[in-house]
Amino acid sequence: MTIDRTTLRWNGWGPTRQKSPLPHDAPQWEWIRETLGLSRLPSTPAIPLEDITLPVCNLSNATLKRLREIVGDDHVRTDDHERAFHARGKSYHDLLYLRAGRLEMAPDAVVYPRNTDEVLAIVKLASDENIALIPYGGGSSVVGGVNALGKSLAGAILTLDTTLMTRIIQIDKIAMTARIEAGIYGPALETALQAHGVTLSHYPQSFEYSTLGGWIAARGAGQQSNRYGKAEKWLVSARLATPKGFWSTEDTPASAAGPNLNQLVAGSEGTLGVICDATVKIHAIPERKDYRGYLFKNFAMGIEAARRINHADIPVAMVRLSDAPETHFFQAFSSTTPPDSLKARLQRTYLKWKGFDENPCLMLIGHEGDKKTVVWAQECTQAICQSLGALALGTSAGRKWYHGRFGSPYSRDPMLERGVGVDTLETSTRWSNIAKLHEAVITALHDAMAANMPEEGARGIVMAHLSHSYPDGASLYFTFVFPRDLRREVEQWQAIKRAATDAIINNRGTISHHHGVGIDHAPWLAEEKGEIGFAVLKALKAELDPKSVMNPGKLLG
Amino acid sequence: MTIDRTTLRWNGWGPTRQKSPLPHDAPQWEWIRETLGLSRLPSTPAIPLEDITLPVCNLSNATLKRLREIVGDDHVRTDDHERAFHARGKSYHDLLYLRAGRLEMAPDAVVYPRNTDEVLAIVKLASDENIALIPYGGGSSVVGGVNALGKSLAGAILTLDTTLMTRIIQIDKIAMTARIEAGIYGPALETALQAHGVTLSHYPQSFEYSTLGGWIAARGAGQQSNRYGKAEKWLVSARLATPKGFWSTEDTPASAAGPNLNQLVAGSEGTLGVICDATVKIHAIPERKDYRGYLFKNFAMGIEAARRINHADIPVAMVRLSDAPETHFFQAFSSTTPPDSLKARLQRTYLKWKGFDENPCLMLIGHEGDKKTVVWAQECTQAICQSLGALALGTSAGRKWYHGRFGSPYSRDPMLERGVGVDTLETSTRWSNIAKLHEAVITALHDAMAANMPEEGARGIVMAHLSHSYPDGASLYFTFVFPRDLRREVEQWQAIKRAATDAIINNRGTISHHHGVGIDHAPWLAEEKGEIGFAVLKALKAELDPKSVMNPGKLLG
Repeated sequence: MTIDRTTLRWNGWGPTRQKSPLPHDAPQWEWIRETLGLSRLPSTPAIPLEDITLPVCNLSNATLKRLREIVGDDHVRTDDHERAFHARGKSYHDLLYLRAGRLEMAPDAVVYPRNTDEVLAIVKLASDENIALIPYGGGSSVVGGVNALGKSLAGAILTLDTTLMTRIIQIDKIAMTARIEAGIYGPALETALQAHGVTLSHYPQSFEYSTLGGWIAARGAGQQSNRYGKAEKWLVSARLATPKGFWSTEDTPASAAGPNLNQLVAGSEGTLGVICDATVKIHAIPERKDYRGYLFKNFAMGIEAARRINHADIPVAMVRLSDAPETHFFQAFSSTTPPDSLKARLQRTYLKWKGFDENPCLMLIGHEGDKKTVVWAQECTQAICQSLGALALGTSAGRKWYHGRFGSPYSRDPMLERGVGVDTLETSTRWSNIAKLHEAVITALHDAMAANMPEEGARGIVMAHLSHSYPDGASLYFTFVFPRDLRREVEQWQAIKRAATDAIINNRGTISHHHGVGIDHAPWLAEEKGEIGFAVLKALKAELDPKSVMNPGKLLG
Repeated sequence: MTIDRTTLRWNGWGPTRQKSPLPHDAPQWEWIRETLGLSRLPSTPAIPLEDITLPVCNLSNATLKRLREIVGDDHVRTDDHERAFHARGKSYHDLLYLRAGRLEMAPDAVVYPRNTDEVLAIVKLASDENIALIPYGGGSSVVGGVNALGKSLAGAILTLDTTLMTRIIQIDKIAMTARIEAGIYGPALETALQAHGVTLSHYPQSFEYSTLGGWIAARGAGQQSNRYGKAEKWLVSARLATPKGFWSTEDTPASAAGPNLNQLVAGSEGTLGVICDATVKIHAIPERKDYRGYLFKNFAMGIEAARRINHADIPVAMVRLSDAPETHFFQAFSSTTPPDSLKARLQRTYLKWKGFDENPCLMLIGHEGDKKTVVWAQECTQAICQSLGALALGTSAGRKWYHGRFGSPYSRDPMLERGVGVDTLETSTRWSNIAKLHEAVITALHDAMAANMPEEGARGIVMAHLSHSYPDGASLYFTFVFPRDLRREVEQWQAIKRAATDAIINNRGTISHHHGVGIDHAPWLAEEKGEIGFAVLKALKAELDPKSVMNPGKLLG
């Protein structure tokens, strides 16, 4: 296995052994307690795997034998750790179940194919025997996309783990494309490509523990999507193993040969087949990276800057604008300067003198590419920001963000240990609707959290940023932190999630910009796609997977 | 009607009354005759409509009555000119039939809905009564995309002309999107948008006589697609009237809410429903346009320059590279300097001294946008060209091309009058395969033309250009000119077309980059899409148009 699953947390993020970013004596805990209005932070440890009894394996010996014939004895796994590891993804919702030791959802077995022929044989077997088949890459889904659902079929569930399929099949440095097997993790992919002087530069927050296939299946976005594109944009072509056989999609640069089917593969979430390999757009390793910060007087001015940058012909890798609460949170959470120190007070005085009130908004702009272009583009974006009254903060804020850009998920587990819930959700909408959608979701989250508090005086916090932008609009990413109501924590989360998603769909946002649909967003998909669009998706599924064995319950519900 | 059909040629390009770009005494005729190796150019006039008897209208009086109830008496047309005008598109293949007075394919009636509700009512009526329904915009298809096929259904064919639906529904200058009815012609669309300071800037060669809906249905490309995008790229969302009802596609800037269905609408060619209106990406009217020419020593050096421009972060509107025969042809066809004049001889001597042999290749590069960016980008592209030994020709070559950029189609009718056939075809492939595909298609065209000549010593000519480019590859556009074999001219064309398309598909090109599939490319679509891809398209069609009344015979064959 590329990463031995026993070295990874089955019920949390990252390696089993890791240094907590929030040790018990960290100064942040007191700030968190106070901010959430709690009298104390409880101790809420997870139940260890040794104390949990998994459901009996429902696969027949005959089926297990056939699977071993396909992939070899070592690659059919029925042990507790493998089944627990593959039971669910990494959503807040999932972690509530995993940490409580509720493993009803564990797959009956996990199978690790080594090549695409083995994948197809497994898909055909599952279809023939009516077994639910769950494609699984890094397992980093935060929407329930890899959860082992589907008992309603023949009563057995098989998870197909793609992470032994990691070959770079071809690199074409003239066309700047690479064909790569889908089970490769982010770091291994970049290491392999960069050894050839090229890069995909798809860096989602989950980069360390997510795979190429998962990025495509869920229409993921890397942090530098402005330059490198969201998965559906850098995807050139894919090969899937479907119950009907191998499906290779179109691979010419542009075509008028009828509808293009690559955009059906991107976002298919394992419901049509298993993505075996994909051809993707690559780039020369950028000669220079320039990340720097700007402070805006308010969120609206920052949005306007992001919009103008997108409407100018300026090459930009990243435009990331935090709203005032997020700007304040990061300052409070990560600053080494105490808020009542002389330095902090002088900073506040300077900002006030410059016309900034108490709610400034931080924008980080990243440029990547050859030196000459980066210098030119940086001057252009800086001119736009300054024309809107922003304060140029230089490169230190940019460097700091860049250094910690994969860090946030590691904070969730220690928070969960102390009764604090953290979840995120994201959407996109047109520029003309960004401010309205931002406000509607913030309000919905605040109201729903307030209605679901564990104790008097407790409260949640919400913050957001704009992090992926396009000519016609941008994404909004919300983080909400709240005291868990331990008596009804699943219901608490569901109430908050429902309120936020209703607000999104009622305010012309998409139910997801880059997390995907999975189980969590499935109830809203029909509304977003409309009656005919939803019927088209169902017809497509019926054509490729007539027995509905592929990742049941996801996407279409 | 936005353009009265009686003012337009029913069997050729443009207005009925127009000045021929090649009058009978034009000096080019002698050059054409000599180049094609003909003893003389015959006179081959078209048969006038008055001399043609159209087939009897097969629609029942009851159906005609229902149609009149939907759209009003004036908008159901059964007169000869309307039926002849809508019988076919503008392919070389079509013109052979139209000019010969072969109107077996005329629709039984033409209906002009005024709004989307009328469109839906017509679509439902056609589906209920099993009548073939042909969506028709400008009718400029060069692949048989609007031909009135489908008698095998209930024996009647109805053409739905969208050109009364021309409203600008909404312009959003914050998101830079516009929602526009699909029947609007190019010039009307640009006039309406530019009155608001914005532009779509989709300028195909057919711009004057093609519509928004047709551009989307066929995945068309404007000449400045590098900046403004091919139709599938500027399409944000569409509303179609399908036999199952209205279908509005997703309209958020980017989404992970499952597969995106807009890429099914782009390229659907009227087989799923009628595109009623679309939301598209718009731009500020560019402050500056800069078009200029470069001369490369050979095609390979020009390709390399185009590739490097695409791999750099340089905003460019157009990169258009003619191969040596096309460069030579345009010089011979349009130059006012006689080839044996002192000026021409001095030019040749200078080029030779600079290391250019007899086969230089012309590249035109266009930049559009704000002044500052255009200046910067122009310097960058010029540096790339010069680093590859190109000679900068300045802006006059660019201005000349720009001025005549919609002119080519007007030359075809006069050529057809004198026994000369002209056709074009186009494809795209990866950068690493461009040279190979270019050579394979040139060879196939030459061989097939040679095998299908009307007389000893006669020959065809082939020329090509690269005109739309992407990070992973580019399009190739071929023009071939040949003496018509009047005894078997349809068979002659079919043999040439078949040879070229086989060469494309055997050399990893797409069967069409921006003309579409229609009838002419349909026999190759299954091979390009693969068995599963083709099955997916058929399942989609069955879902939306279960009785197969929408544009029968197109796309899927």
